[in-house]
Amino acid sequence: MEKKFVYSFNEGSKEMKDLLGGKGANLAEMTRIGLPVPFGFTITTEACNRYYEEKETVAQDIIDDVNEKILELENVTGKKFGSQENPLLVSVRSGSVFSMPGMMDTILNLGLNDQSVEGLAELTANRRFAMDSYRRFIQMFGDVVLEISKSAFDVVFDGKKLEKGVKYDVELTAEDLEEIIVKYKGIIKEHTGKDFPQDPKVQLVEAIKAVFRSWNNERAILYRKLNEIPDSLGTAVNVQSMVFGNMGDTSGTGVAFTRNPATGENKIFGEFLVNAQGEDVVAGVRTPINIENMEQAFPEAYKEFLKIADLLEKHYKDVQDMEFTVERNKLYMLQTRNGKRTAQAAVKIAVDMTNEGLIDKKTAILRLEPSQIDQLLHPTFDAEELKKADLTASGLPASPGAASGKVYFTAEDAVKAAENGEKVLLVREETSPEDLAGMVAAEGILTARGGMTSHAAVVARGMGKCCVAGCSEINVSEKTKTITAKNGTIYNEGDFISIDGSTGKVYRGAIKTVEPEVSGDFATLMQWADEIRELKVRANADNPKDAAQALSFGAEGIGLCRTEHMFFEEKRIPAIRRMILSDTVEERVKALEVLKPFQQGDFKGIYQVMKERPVTIRLLDPPLHEFLPSEDDEISQLADMMGVSFDRLKAKVLELHELNPMLGNRGCRLAVSYPEIAVMQTEAIIGAAIEIKKEEDIDILPEIMIPLVGEVEELSNVKATVVETADRLIAESGIELEYLVGTMIEIPRAALTADEIAKEAEFFSFGTNDLTQMTLGLSRDDTGKLITNYVDKKILENDPFQTIDVNGVGKLVEMAVALGKQTRPKIKLGICGEHGGDPKSIEFCHKVGLNYVSCSPFRVPIAKLAAAQAAVKNPIE
Amino acid sequence: MEKKFVYSFNEGSKEMKDLLGGKGANLAEMTRIGLPVPFGFTITTEACNRYYEEKETVAQDIIDDVNEKILELENVTGKKFGSQENPLLVSVRSGSVFSMPGMMDTILNLGLNDQSVEGLAELTANRRFAMDSYRRFIQMFGDVVLEISKSAFDVVFDGKKLEKGVKYDVELTAEDLEEIIVKYKGIIKEHTGKDFPQDPKVQLVEAIKAVFRSWNNERAILYRKLNEIPDSLGTAVNVQSMVFGNMGDTSGTGVAFTRNPATGENKIFGEFLVNAQGEDVVAGVRTPINIENMEQAFPEAYKEFLKIADLLEKHYKDVQDMEFTVERNKLYMLQTRNGKRTAQAAVKIAVDMTNEGLIDKKTAILRLEPSQIDQLLHPTFDAEELKKADLTASGLPASPGAASGKVYFTAEDAVKAAENGEKVLLVREETSPEDLAGMVAAEGILTARGGMTSHAAVVARGMGKCCVAGCSEINVSEKTKTITAKNGTIYNEGDFISIDGSTGKVYRGAIKTVEPEVSGDFATLMQWADEIRELKVRANADNPKDAAQALSFGAEGIGLCRTEHMFFEEKRIPAIRRMILSDTVEERVKALEVLKPFQQGDFKGIYQVMKERPVTIRLLDPPLHEFLPSEDDEISQLADMMGVSFDRLKAKVLELHELNPMLGNRGCRLAVSYPEIAVMQTEAIIGAAIEIKKEEDIDILPEIMIPLVGEVEELSNVKATVVETADRLIAESGIELEYLVGTMIEIPRAALTADEIAKEAEFFSFGTNDLTQMTLGLSRDDTGKLITNYVDKKILENDPFQTIDVNGVGKLVEMAVALGKQTRPKIKLGICGEHGGDPKSIEFCHKVGLNYVSCSPFRVPIAKLAAAQAAVKNPIE
Repeated sequence: MEKKFVYSFNEGSKEMKDLLGGKGANLAEMTRIGLPVPFGFTITTEACNRYYEEKETVAQDIIDDVNEKILELENVTGKKFGSQENPLLVSVRSGSVFSMPGMMDTILNLGLNDQSVEGLAELTANRRFAMDSYRRFIQMFGDVVLEISKSAFDVVFDGKKLEKGVKYDVELTAEDLEEIIVKYKGIIKEHTGKDFPQDPKVQLVEAIKAVFRSWNNERAILYRKLNEIPDSLGTAVNVQSMVFGNMGDTSGTGVAFTRNPATGENKIFGEFLVNAQGEDVVAGVRTPINIENMEQAFPEAYKEFLKIADLLEKHYKDVQDMEFTVERNKLYMLQTRNGKRTAQAAVKIAVDMTNEGLIDKKTAILRLEPSQIDQLLHPTFDAEELKKADLTASGLPASPGAASGKVYFTAEDAVKAAENGEKVLLVREETSPEDLAGMVAAEGILTARGGMTSHAAVVARGMGKCCVAGCSEINVSEKTKTITAKNGTIYNEGDFISIDGSTGKVYRGAIKTVEPEVSGDFATLMQWADEIRELKVRANADNPKDAAQALSFGAEGIGLCRTEHMFFEEKRIPAIRRMILSDTVEERVKALEVLKPFQQGDFKGIYQVMKERPVTIRLLDPPLHEFLPSEDDEISQLADMMGVSFDRLKAKVLELHELNPMLGNRGCRLAVSYPEIAVMQTEAIIGAAIEIKKEEDIDILPEIMIPLVGEVEELSNVKATVVETADRLIAESGIELEYLVGTMIEIPRAALTADEIAKEAEFFSFGTNDLTQMTLGLSRDDTGKLITNYVDKKILENDPFQTIDVNGVGKLVEMAVALGKQTRPKIKLGICGEHGGDPKSIEFCHKVGLNYVSCSPFRVPIAKLAAAQAAVKNPIE
Repeated sequence: MEKKFVYSFNEGSKEMKDLLGGKGANLAEMTRIGLPVPFGFTITTEACNRYYEEKETVAQDIIDDVNEKILELENVTGKKFGSQENPLLVSVRSGSVFSMPGMMDTILNLGLNDQSVEGLAELTANRRFAMDSYRRFIQMFGDVVLEISKSAFDVVFDGKKLEKGVKYDVELTAEDLEEIIVKYKGIIKEHTGKDFPQDPKVQLVEAIKAVFRSWNNERAILYRKLNEIPDSLGTAVNVQSMVFGNMGDTSGTGVAFTRNPATGENKIFGEFLVNAQGEDVVAGVRTPINIENMEQAFPEAYKEFLKIADLLEKHYKDVQDMEFTVERNKLYMLQTRNGKRTAQAAVKIAVDMTNEGLIDKKTAILRLEPSQIDQLLHPTFDAEELKKADLTASGLPASPGAASGKVYFTAEDAVKAAENGEKVLLVREETSPEDLAGMVAAEGILTARGGMTSHAAVVARGMGKCCVAGCSEINVSEKTKTITAKNGTIYNEGDFISIDGSTGKVYRGAIKTVEPEVSGDFATLMQWADEIRELKVRANADNPKDAAQALSFGAEGIGLCRTEHMFFEEKRIPAIRRMILSDTVEERVKALEVLKPFQQGDFKGIYQVMKERPVTIRLLDPPLHEFLPSEDDEISQLADMMGVSFDRLKAKVLELHELNPMLGNRGCRLAVSYPEIAVMQTEAIIGAAIEIKKEEDIDILPEIMIPLVGEVEELSNVKATVVETADRLIAESGIELEYLVGTMIEIPRAALTADEIAKEAEFFSFGTNDLTQMTLGLSRDDTGKLITNYVDKKILENDPFQTIDVNGVGKLVEMAVALGKQTRPKIKLGICGEHGGDPKSIEFCHKVGLNYVSCSPFRVPIAKLAAAQAAVKNPIE
């Protein structure tokens, strides 16, 4: 059978998303279940890929299929392409597998030409409307298809308004618009050397090509990169017979969610504009009315819409984001899709729907983007400071969270300032896709115009950035770079303000923020995640404060306590420097004795927080030169302070200098050379546990982790020191205490010889940061730009330091897991690199059978959710 | 059956080396085939290991077995331990699996006590001899068993000589010696608090323990490390009834080789001392006579010895190194073993024996230590310079090769000077095992005393260092650190001299050396190696001169031509710096155009040498900062020279600075960022090949190697540039030219994803230097000391940069080979790291199925031999 590249709406279903795109599949589905959808057809994503394969041409067989579908459309609607009597007009819209709002191009009113516009005028008995539609179509066609700058058309249009001395577009007459149409056609002739195409079939093919092209416009590429959407998917094209929300006061257009996408409240939520086309709502040009107020003007249509909304939510078992048009009191559904929502709303909706019996717990768990959870963990303003804060204005609470920053008025300025390390708020009249980079760079976004579904609001929610939108109490001048509030306050570029995206409030100056906590629906969902997941979630924490934070977010232990951070404190660093400068073991031991009480105190504090939960403590890891200055003047200063000669200190600095410290003398290599360091640290680790046992009768289970092992003999060597020291202390104490000795797997060779290493190691913790550096031969400090460049060029799919490189590093991890279990079937396996907090990497960890992941305290809930999702998606047999 | 720890000589055979040690197995073998061997028994290496396992004690069951064997020995010899009538005296000697000459301890005359010494005196009718034997035994026992410093005994002995006013030992009378014995026993009582043990069985057990202990003395450990002998083997102990070469002028002792160990000449070669014990020959204290001169004094014994020597060589099918003693005209064989020999001798002997039909070609190939071949490739003195050279003295040509260097007189001074980068000659009166470190550090060794089998000679030959021994024409004062030659010349510490170990000549000052070549027997052997080996051998060469050198040594292609070395030349580096400083592609291209003719010329020169042989050319690899200075004053100078501002140059230097350049922006990463570099290099590579084809009609097969690939997309990216450029040039030229594009496998991830990479790569070359650094997380620049420490502590078995780490890096190589072949069954596989010249690593390469190894030109013959040996040892099925 030949491949089918074009599907009528009644030939598809919601399962055919990959082929028809999200919009096309849902239009087909709505058609299938009998909802009022203007008829049309979809050109598949495969046609798009063929377009690119065939050097950006549309094959004749596809054009033939399209023409056939047009015939069918003419039959169904009784209208005819290009006809003066009953002209068929269509919209042409992109529709990719994953929603990419506003990223690609749309053309309306296609089919209008010098004949059919007359037909439209007669049929609607509204010549002005017909002419306005035609001039909009030409302009859109010029812009999108022929790539003529919008401003060329604006000059003509604004010129006519000036000539006529009118302020609003509606004040222009049909005759004015006819004159504009002539001039528009002139622009097209001038720019392309050809006449504006009168044949609707030609218009259509060109429009289809333009949509295909738009898949690879810069905005779309950036959006896909940000949202990790593969470039290979391609977009479908939906061709649908037009309905008009702008046919006067019995017409209108709306956008609505079945539940509130900001709060999750189970109540229809949306906006409606009378006498407008759909794009007017999305673009945020006019501020629309609340959907509930639609009832007054359109009681029948509203009632039907509510019924359809309810039906669609039950049908899709998820919140629906719908677009519709009322043409002369008749309701048409133009789109439905699962609604984007804030994290807060996502949580509430998932919990509510589960309680309503619509979905089960596993489905509820899958309804959240783990990275979105981040939003719930964003800071809010300190309540006390907020009381005293100076309110400037109020807008729409478009995306929750709170942020303070310096105001910048263009994406470019915002990016530059952020690069300079400033905290930035992007302030715009309204945002457009061109502002994306600035939004990425900003802490939050403030716009003066647009609603809850405006570009700024949608994108900010997607990014988890706080946003106050449609703040009509301020006037934003992008030209003079000032905000002028109704209350008289003026802010210039670089002034600090604070915005609260949960309340819509805008404040003067910077306000202190406070940390969030896990409660309510979120806690419920976390509990479900806990029931479902297989992976334990620990946190990386180096001190009692971080440990407490981690615990409050639900950490089940500490997966990585770095001991070296403890040494950098002012009181301690002199002792570690003394230790480094020691010429004999005795001197070194003396210096270490100074450090021990501090270290023991640190561990005791952490144990007191974590109680019986496991705590993995890593022995000293960094190269010793990190504790010494490198510049001559600093060396001189330190020498004076330490009472040693400059030359001696300088000599030590030079001796310790390394060309490639990443591959140098650190980790267990230090402990092999200076076993006394391991002795002191073991004494502190075990000593603190003994104290806690004696004082509070709590059984501590320290896991002593020996870093940077590449060969089992290294581990044996250091382990011998650790075990001897620990056993001595335990014997002396007269109490019983268990402890484990394990290692990081962070050198490729450790993974390759994990069977050997497991003979000595009671646990493995994958240090995927360093493992990635060595396995890929990429220094994280040196190749930031390179990696960005590689991701841009698609040489790498992801930044391997954010998401684990499954094909390379992942292969080593898998090998190490298999080899380790071969030697020691019950070996404890965890990960403590930054990947431990990355959802995709967590899924990998689940699949390879690790016991836990460890991440920064703030990512614990994300990790738990990701772990639960991994368990749902990949049940362990 | 219980394990047997003690074997009589008639219970073993030469196959039992692992258990009986080399010496013990050969004594058993000689006994078995009926040769005159003084009877005895061997305590096994397993007993030694048990000794260490059981905390350095000898188990009672082993002592019981020994006592039983003593009884047997008493029965066989008719003598009795401790008897005054007919005392049994024994030697106690170590004997490990691999010969470790002089490294462990030996005790002679054991069994003497106050009674048996009288018996010996009577039996031999030589009281002086008996007393001298007794005092020697006490001294040896005190030194070796009781660890009392030799000097304590020397003081007594020298004191007696002084008291008597005599010069030579032999001038002391039996009475004098009796007095000395009393004093010696006093020393032992004083040092140990116990009397010198009179019970021979006690003496024996203590002696056995001492031999076991000597397995782990420092010298033995160092020797094992140098010779890569496992510590776990342990030593056997041989207890043998004594025969005396020092029973007057009808007695004597000798050491001989069945063929000349220095030249390989098929003629008995050795030394003989009348009226001496064996140790006197080996220690080099007295200069012995040539073995052939033994015939005059001992015609019968000499005839028998020649017969036995011939028999042993035929029996063992290898050159034998024998020790024997003549006691009152009767010949006794004390030892036989395969003789150590110079590389030159090894080659001649292997070829001769093959031609004689004694061995086959494969055996001949196995008869050479590949590392020994190095000796044949050592330089000799330039003939012209040699004519004008100022001869100082002549000695024995103890180990071939020629060297110039500054003279140092102690091992310590030699080591220090060598560490400071000086070329050193170690000059000693005679060497002892304590001098080993100094010999390692030196270019060559010169001794004033000792023969061809003296310590210095044996060890130097083993090391492949040139050595002139027994140079009696010079007087060496280690105290004043001077050489005084008979011709009046005086050299002080630090003066330059030259020695020729092939001629025995010593010259004033430094003399130019010339490179060796492959000819004669060596060429024959190499030809046999070529017939047998499976691996091809290429060389690493960056210029026509090195390529020619490689070719003369038999290289079959170039496995690695590093293009960056070409840029460091004075005329070229400005252009590469210009290229680095370019702000635009255009500027960069302009700078590269300056470099292209140079580069193309280099390649043309190399092709002209290599002709049709494959040449692998690696694209630019090092990070760009290597081409710029780093210090401010150098930057300033260069800025002036280049006519750019200091600030601009400094900014570039800072921009390019990397914290971990090993993992930074180099290799293919440069070509991804700056494709124009790859374009220029490809143009030069292909352009030169086209020129050669047109001018000389030679088909060049360039293999273009893209370095540091970690991900196939990197390779695709750069390959696209290379192929486009190459194909364009070839099309323009109108000729046909084949070329390959491949990659280095030097990043762990490349090995892990070799199946992917093989889709693009037509060949893999394993860059095991960098692969080792990354796989082990060991920076070669920073961890030299650490690796030494690790090898000392046995954490690592070998320096992984010398011998491939089979368990780690080797595993990756194996994976990459398997994955690569999976995708591209005929993929060409080679290695170009330094391991390509290391025999053990070459065996690994053979086993995993590489096609070739590439090494430095001088190591090509070694690699060929190692490859042939690998093929013999591991035939590919």
